[in-house]
Amino acid sequence: MLKVFICLLLFINIVQCYIMEPGALIKATKGEIWPIPKNQTKNNKYLILNPNLFSFKVVNYDCSIIQQAITRYWLIINQQALGNFKPIQKLQNDLYKKEKHPNFEGFLDALNVNLTGSCKGDELPYFNMDESYEIEISKQRVELKSPSIWGILRGMESFSQLIYASEDLTLKVNFTTISDRPKYSHRGLLLDTSRHFISVKKILETLDAMAYNKLNVFHWHIVDDQSFPYKSVKFPKMSDKGAYHPVLRVYQQDDIKNIIEYARIRGIRVMAEFDTPGHTRSWGEAITDLLTPCYDKTSSKPTGQFGPIDPTKNSTYAFLKTFFGEVVKVFPDKYVHLGGDEVGFECWESNPIIKEFMKANNLTDNYAGLESFYIQKLVKIVQNLKSNFIVWEEVFTNGVKLPPETIVHVWIDGDYKGLMSNITAEGKKIILSACYYLDHLETGGDWLSYYRCDPSNFTATDNQKSLVMGGEAAMWSEVVNDYNVISRVWPRASAVAEKLWSVHSPNLNIDDTDNNVINLYIKGKLTSDTIMVAKRLEEHTCRMNKRGIGAQPPTGPGVCL
Amino acid sequence: MLKVFICLLLFINIVQCYIMEPGALIKATKGEIWPIPKNQTKNNKYLILNPNLFSFKVVNYDCSIIQQAITRYWLIINQQALGNFKPIQKLQNDLYKKEKHPNFEGFLDALNVNLTGSCKGDELPYFNMDESYEIEISKQRVELKSPSIWGILRGMESFSQLIYASEDLTLKVNFTTISDRPKYSHRGLLLDTSRHFISVKKILETLDAMAYNKLNVFHWHIVDDQSFPYKSVKFPKMSDKGAYHPVLRVYQQDDIKNIIEYARIRGIRVMAEFDTPGHTRSWGEAITDLLTPCYDKTSSKPTGQFGPIDPTKNSTYAFLKTFFGEVVKVFPDKYVHLGGDEVGFECWESNPIIKEFMKANNLTDNYAGLESFYIQKLVKIVQNLKSNFIVWEEVFTNGVKLPPETIVHVWIDGDYKGLMSNITAEGKKIILSACYYLDHLETGGDWLSYYRCDPSNFTATDNQKSLVMGGEAAMWSEVVNDYNVISRVWPRASAVAEKLWSVHSPNLNIDDTDNNVINLYIKGKLTSDTIMVAKRLEEHTCRMNKRGIGAQPPTGPGVCL
Repeated sequence: MLKVFICLLLFINIVQCYIMEPGALIKATKGEIWPIPKNQTKNNKYLILNPNLFSFKVVNYDCSIIQQAITRYWLIINQQALGNFKPIQKLQNDLYKKEKHPNFEGFLDALNVNLTGSCKGDELPYFNMDESYEIEISKQRVELKSPSIWGILRGMESFSQLIYASEDLTLKVNFTTISDRPKYSHRGLLLDTSRHFISVKKILETLDAMAYNKLNVFHWHIVDDQSFPYKSVKFPKMSDKGAYHPVLRVYQQDDIKNIIEYARIRGIRVMAEFDTPGHTRSWGEAITDLLTPCYDKTSSKPTGQFGPIDPTKNSTYAFLKTFFGEVVKVFPDKYVHLGGDEVGFECWESNPIIKEFMKANNLTDNYAGLESFYIQKLVKIVQNLKSNFIVWEEVFTNGVKLPPETIVHVWIDGDYKGLMSNITAEGKKIILSACYYLDHLETGGDWLSYYRCDPSNFTATDNQKSLVMGGEAAMWSEVVNDYNVISRVWPRASAVAEKLWSVHSPNLNIDDTDNNVINLYIKGKLTSDTIMVAKRLEEHTCRMNKRGIGAQPPTGPGVCL
Repeated sequence: MLKVFICLLLFINIVQCYIMEPGALIKATKGEIWPIPKNQTKNNKYLILNPNLFSFKVVNYDCSIIQQAITRYWLIINQQALGNFKPIQKLQNDLYKKEKHPNFEGFLDALNVNLTGSCKGDELPYFNMDESYEIEISKQRVELKSPSIWGILRGMESFSQLIYASEDLTLKVNFTTISDRPKYSHRGLLLDTSRHFISVKKILETLDAMAYNKLNVFHWHIVDDQSFPYKSVKFPKMSDKGAYHPVLRVYQQDDIKNIIEYARIRGIRVMAEFDTPGHTRSWGEAITDLLTPCYDKTSSKPTGQFGPIDPTKNSTYAFLKTFFGEVVKVFPDKYVHLGGDEVGFECWESNPIIKEFMKANNLTDNYAGLESFYIQKLVKIVQNLKSNFIVWEEVFTNGVKLPPETIVHVWIDGDYKGLMSNITAEGKKIILSACYYLDHLETGGDWLSYYRCDPSNFTATDNQKSLVMGGEAAMWSEVVNDYNVISRVWPRASAVAEKLWSVHSPNLNIDDTDNNVINLYIKGKLTSDTIMVAKRLEEHTCRMNKRGIGAQPPTGPGVCL
């Protein structure tokens, strides 16, 4: 069995394999940051975490978000210390007696947390917030500095990742200087909670893991055809009738508040998607005149089935105004995702009232035009509510007339690069998911395909490329429930997280056709950046496991201790 | 996003999809048994489980295995009753007042457990044990009958699956007559605990789930190249040096005893595999003269690397005799798996001492002959220990001379049907895994490929076909750890379980090229057996979830309540 597997681990299909060493396939790094910082220098000198005394010291502006982060990271660091505890006395004896520790430079008692800007106006994370930070660990200074609380959060995460357990049962931090900021501001994870209901507990775990990966947008694909778990204030019947269960499988308003707050203090935006006019079958269970009745083509009678939202009725827009009025209040993020994907025209085509309306509006046989009619009205409603919006790519490709500030979410795994050129040529912004679909499974460790996808890798001017806001890993939940959602998302979404944060991500030099490179890789003799990414991901996955995130193995045989 | 997914759910790549209904894609059955019994008749009359009184009543031979099973199933049934509790008084009022319950035939107070044979000689499950049983649920009789305790266990499982929660908050059992027995006696699950260590807790969960699926062989691929977690009595250094961790990542003798006992009382055999002469890299960490030193071809010096076990040394066979002497005591099953797959000849080829030995033994350049030399000696050792043995297919295909009682485990996903013809033509027995590899992942619900594979579907005489002992689902753990092992195995292994147990498994009539059939299927209008399997698997998966097995969704959007 083995040969095939070892080779599959390399994401390639060759059967010829070589002599192997026992133990883990990929040896984990120690104290490497994921995603890799923009600039970092490092040397062999190190401090040892003082097991009695370590604390965070706020040396400038303080805010509640920072205090809460300190509590979290203090726990994370001390949990790590539990397994690596040596009384300070003993440590000092060990270290000073022998002169075997030329790189030991002292004990680490505190990290100075230096927020140079104030907290005001930064209550909620937002698109293009400042996430930059600097870290210095040296003889002179142990400091995290940032002009913004969001930068402080990212820096605290990086600092916690610098600490590594050494074989002598101490926790060490090497001298380092970091100056870091993200490549893209929109770094998301889409989670579909309609095809299967995902519990609040698993959503909170997901947010924890997002923070560990510096992802900052939880794109909540909360409802869809199959179920409507959103418990609306104004339309409670929508989940009473449209959820898988009116009580056990809904998100109450309090659940949503808790999720948004949990995300907020981690610097994560919660962007809700209420996808229309397709994907709304569950909406129609309670709002009975919302969807288009489908007609049988031969008998010209209603079939009892329903299609997309009926764009011809005034009641539709009255409903949408009230509904989205609620949505933008419940979800305070400045962006709402309006969907607009995969609108099937069959049902509209079958319906005589729709046809009549189209004729009267000079839209005869122009179903994309009808969709456009609907989307434009919806966009106006949302704009009047002072919300920004995002739409799936079909809204663009179907030729809907869109305001210039429209953001297009690219998802179809076809010529998405060509599409990105076209969209940005029209001056519109982009979020990319086409190459980040986590529901696409491959045998073996399958993070490499995500890692190979760079959102700036399409033919365009620099100006056009600046219109890429970022991307999102997407976890559709057709075959995902509470039991496999965490292990399926992590660490595969970590690969996406690094591509969206890191500017100089290590280059991947594996050439699929070069057996020699592959063999070197197998033998562990390839010291290029390629193997470094896998080694770092190995450490990062074990780090997530240690923090309670049930991530699956990234690449191949191994162990987390 | 949806269209693609719905279609993928059908395991086919078409993008055209149709108007859909809200709710679960596949509606679960109620009270259907998985795997499907050989013979079952059923009608609409039903009993209601008496919430106060239900018990198991041993009416004939009793044994400790039966008593323990009664405890387990009593808990399972009562846990189900928790959510469906109505005081008996109220129930009686409801049922007798209205005359709306024409099919209600009374309360179910007890299941008679009728073991017609004795327990003696049946302390340990074994190949070809009698697993047949009969169930009658009628006005006259509520009885489970079997000549063997193993049949009683299988019947208790079936009985527990007959009970279903009704919307009126009662637990019902329909009148039914079942006469059941397995198609194959060897119905296994292989679990690899070397590439990643799997905790005892997860192994016990796996055994629970195996019992719920009537699988009866836990094939424990306990060690491999990467790690040696088996804590040997005679060679404790093998795990001290070869395990991922000498304490935290080993199976102690007590762990193994507990696992075997846990399996035994569920009618599950624990068959250990100690794969040689390849796949032994971790063995060599402690037993330093066991493996073949590899030589550099140009310098003719040892490279420091090691290949398969060195078949030329007497010390090798002395070690194997002692080691397997221990193995057959620790693992009391009458079969041991000797491996023999993927023996790489490169290292043997490079080694001058091996070459000399081959020359002296008329084996010059005949590496398959050298492997044969080794296997034959190993087989004799194991036969002297009075153990039966199984080998991977390469032992056969490499032309090793094998005794007629050899069992060949077919695993390579190539022309495995042709191979099965060849092996059985030589009168040798077969275990099939080639089409049951759980580490092969596909996007969407991917149980259908396993379900399509019937072990008797190869060209051969009836006599030859009778040499198929059964099959095994195989979970190699390159990218599987404690966090995803359960959800990845279940319910995918359930598909294998049904193919190995059930004689008349429902026919699958989906024609990949017939869009009409697909559309009917999507619309829920296909009432063929196809959809019945998916519906039954939906129920079975929810049943496993209810019992604490974290199985992933089998097919598509849905909910377990």
